[in-house]
Amino acid sequence: MPTFTDLKKDLDSLFNPGSVAVIGASNTMGKWGFNILTLLLKDQSTQVHAVNRNVVEVLGQKAYRSILEIPGPVDLAIISVPFEHVPAAMEDCVQKGVRAVVVISGGLAETGEEGAKIERQLVDIARRGGIRFMGPNCMGLLDTSSGFNSVIFLPPVNKGPAALISQSGNSGQSIITAGGQTGLGFSKYVSTGNEADLHFEDYLEYMAHDDETRIILGYAEGFREGRRFFELAREITKRKPIVIVKAGRTQDGARAVLSHTAALAGSDAVSDAAFRQAGVIRVEEVDELIDVALILLGQPLPRGRRVGVLSIGGGMAVMAADALAGQGLELAAFSPATMDQLDSILSRRWSHGNPVDIGGDRFNYSCLWPLMEDEGIDAVLVIGPASTGNFIDWFAVNAPWITGLDEIRKMADRQDLAELERVTEAMNRYGKPVVFCSMGSVIVKEGEVYGKRERDYLIPFATPLRAARALAHLVDYSDYLRTSV
Amino acid sequence: MPTFTDLKKDLDSLFNPGSVAVIGASNTMGKWGFNILTLLLKDQSTQVHAVNRNVVEVLGQKAYRSILEIPGPVDLAIISVPFEHVPAAMEDCVQKGVRAVVVISGGLAETGEEGAKIERQLVDIARRGGIRFMGPNCMGLLDTSSGFNSVIFLPPVNKGPAALISQSGNSGQSIITAGGQTGLGFSKYVSTGNEADLHFEDYLEYMAHDDETRIILGYAEGFREGRRFFELAREITKRKPIVIVKAGRTQDGARAVLSHTAALAGSDAVSDAAFRQAGVIRVEEVDELIDVALILLGQPLPRGRRVGVLSIGGGMAVMAADALAGQGLELAAFSPATMDQLDSILSRRWSHGNPVDIGGDRFNYSCLWPLMEDEGIDAVLVIGPASTGNFIDWFAVNAPWITGLDEIRKMADRQDLAELERVTEAMNRYGKPVVFCSMGSVIVKEGEVYGKRERDYLIPFATPLRAARALAHLVDYSDYLRTSV
Repeated sequence: MPTFTDLKKDLDSLFNPGSVAVIGASNTMGKWGFNILTLLLKDQSTQVHAVNRNVVEVLGQKAYRSILEIPGPVDLAIISVPFEHVPAAMEDCVQKGVRAVVVISGGLAETGEEGAKIERQLVDIARRGGIRFMGPNCMGLLDTSSGFNSVIFLPPVNKGPAALISQSGNSGQSIITAGGQTGLGFSKYVSTGNEADLHFEDYLEYMAHDDETRIILGYAEGFREGRRFFELAREITKRKPIVIVKAGRTQDGARAVLSHTAALAGSDAVSDAAFRQAGVIRVEEVDELIDVALILLGQPLPRGRRVGVLSIGGGMAVMAADALAGQGLELAAFSPATMDQLDSILSRRWSHGNPVDIGGDRFNYSCLWPLMEDEGIDAVLVIGPASTGNFIDWFAVNAPWITGLDEIRKMADRQDLAELERVTEAMNRYGKPVVFCSMGSVIVKEGEVYGKRERDYLIPFATPLRAARALAHLVDYSDYLRTSV
Repeated sequence: MPTFTDLKKDLDSLFNPGSVAVIGASNTMGKWGFNILTLLLKDQSTQVHAVNRNVVEVLGQKAYRSILEIPGPVDLAIISVPFEHVPAAMEDCVQKGVRAVVVISGGLAETGEEGAKIERQLVDIARRGGIRFMGPNCMGLLDTSSGFNSVIFLPPVNKGPAALISQSGNSGQSIITAGGQTGLGFSKYVSTGNEADLHFEDYLEYMAHDDETRIILGYAEGFREGRRFFELAREITKRKPIVIVKAGRTQDGARAVLSHTAALAGSDAVSDAAFRQAGVIRVEEVDELIDVALILLGQPLPRGRRVGVLSIGGGMAVMAADALAGQGLELAAFSPATMDQLDSILSRRWSHGNPVDIGGDRFNYSCLWPLMEDEGIDAVLVIGPASTGNFIDWFAVNAPWITGLDEIRKMADRQDLAELERVTEAMNRYGKPVVFCSMGSVIVKEGEVYGKRERDYLIPFATPLRAARALAHLVDYSDYLRTSV
């Protein structure tokens, strides 16, 4: 039984290799061996070698006929050759003494018995040679700390606190892409493929010990080591949240899983119960995964499920009330003190209850402070543009003759930002989440979207339903941490 | 009982007034009377008059002390004065003989008995004077055909086939904004407010007869004339789809409705049943409303609920299978002919069933044609970037030394567009929807996002869940049309 120290050493070679060889490097644009080599040769500090038995040069690099001809040690080999040649390439890696291997090649266990046989061969060779490997049938990995990246066709990935483990390359691409679009940064990403050797559970254990990683995201279809996953997760979720899209929920989905990664999706009810007992947050789709990541990174854990809603308008307030109730959250009853304070701040047109519909008044952060102080409220949902700047922009388009709009805009942004700093401070002091839902409006600071700064992740949700769904997961996770021993 | 001819004449004056007066026009930036006048004075062909009893000039326009002092006829008056002065302003409108009025002012029935009394007064004055009016407590309206627009703080609205009737100004803004961001164009928009006189049902009847409107969207909290709504809707949905966010689904939501527009949300189960019987498509949130509008405008009506999935990758295929099953749709069983054809097109790595996971091959439109021909398939869901251009873009960033990328990109775009034209043609010929889900990737034609052209609305959905949800509504609506007599 390998210890975590062994595992860590092997995975360190994957995530931060001093030297890497691409077996199957190619001069043909569009081939994996071309695309990966292109990426590795661009802005990466790793030493890169090309291996191709038929040519003398690939992408301007000397091409070695075999990895064995490369002078000096090779930490990591990336194999991208037709499936029937993968075992021979792995043999070479054993002889060369490489530490870790990524097998990109597909066409193995996921295609049937012929491929499964070759995959078993591959595992035997690696085991005998003491090599740990990723894949086959995977996209590789990236690490924003070491700067190593073998994942092609991704947009630039920002450094950040989220690690992603995905049993699907294309789902992983979607998660990284959608995450990046909302401002989420990543520490590491692995596309696990068929998991012939290294399993989801190995990466999970590694990410648990990774200091750059504050939250672990996953796309999973089935677990090779269900019990180990459960036991690891139960420990990890005490310190770092784990959020997973567990696909194959339905019969049709489970059937699709089989032909994809040759995994068994297992009973969905069993997965669900195990996830709940281990404190793992289960989500249904990519958007939800990103939303939950953002709320976990940006917000304190609430003490309960009573929500105060502060809305710029009545319709959105009603949709918010529906969305919260639909997600199992409660509309808080306001204390008499809160009612009095809101009466003194707002005009007679306000809704006189929860949700607070400010009734046509301009949004005013002072309405927020009574809700923060009210002990009957566990979390606050703020709905509305909440940004004076967006209104100023409208004037700039429709009434450009108004003088001094630039100055007004700058002043408004400064005021809004000062208010948001106060919100962030209050949020942490009271241990009470303040979730924004702004439908397209954002606060801008020095040309940057507010909340996209790495430290806060105060990114507004697009709709009340998405805000409520994310908040419900936060409440459940908080409940779990309080009640599990 | 007024006839539709009467109603049409009155509403024509709202949507296409020859002259308009703003009662409560103001020189103070941020006030309604300032903002609306600003908008009316910008690029609109309507003759605009300002009414303010205290100043001689507003925004460079002569200000009349009363609407009665304006020389010549006034078709439409927009009233934005404090609530207690609204009845007097309405009296003036009657005297002046204006045809229609928009009451922006709030603080009436939605705030309690005092306001409700004034609102009743307002109705009496208008009835006696033969004036139909919108509001109070509303944002006004816009018409992209006539070019008339009184709705402030909106981004520019593209002309298009969707009419929107909203019982909430801020929900309306969200719908218009979110719709515009995905490329949906609008024919008309009304913010109905408290509906003291003109009801949701009046606008609905008007939109039903409007040639620019191919689909009617709504945000509703409660119907003043439930039976009339039902009977109108049952007729209209035979020709034009009606899609509505009916808020106040939950107890908390229904309570919030009361303080918002003073409407009774009514029993949710009753609404649901009535909507179903009238063929009205009910959705839960703004995103879903937009998605359903796009699928209705862009796709033919399917003959059943058996879906073929064509996916660029296995993970997304599994999520699609889950999403379809979750929305009550079925994965079609492929005919032997379809299996044979796919075998001949794809490498041995494909999933050999539905969903089609092409297994690492490049996306190839030829896989689509067997699914279009297979009579056991009612609709096709295509998942993946589906755009060669996105890959070329990646090379442009990561391998800028490759020569001729611009040319390759142009050729790829031309090919993709030719394929999409073929898809659109086949879609209509077979009467079989082809729904794309592309997670950020789009096809570009001459600098434009494909699908944003008004005629097609072939806009890709962001996630499999959103695609499946929209498709399920399309299937249900098609079912309704086939089975209702």
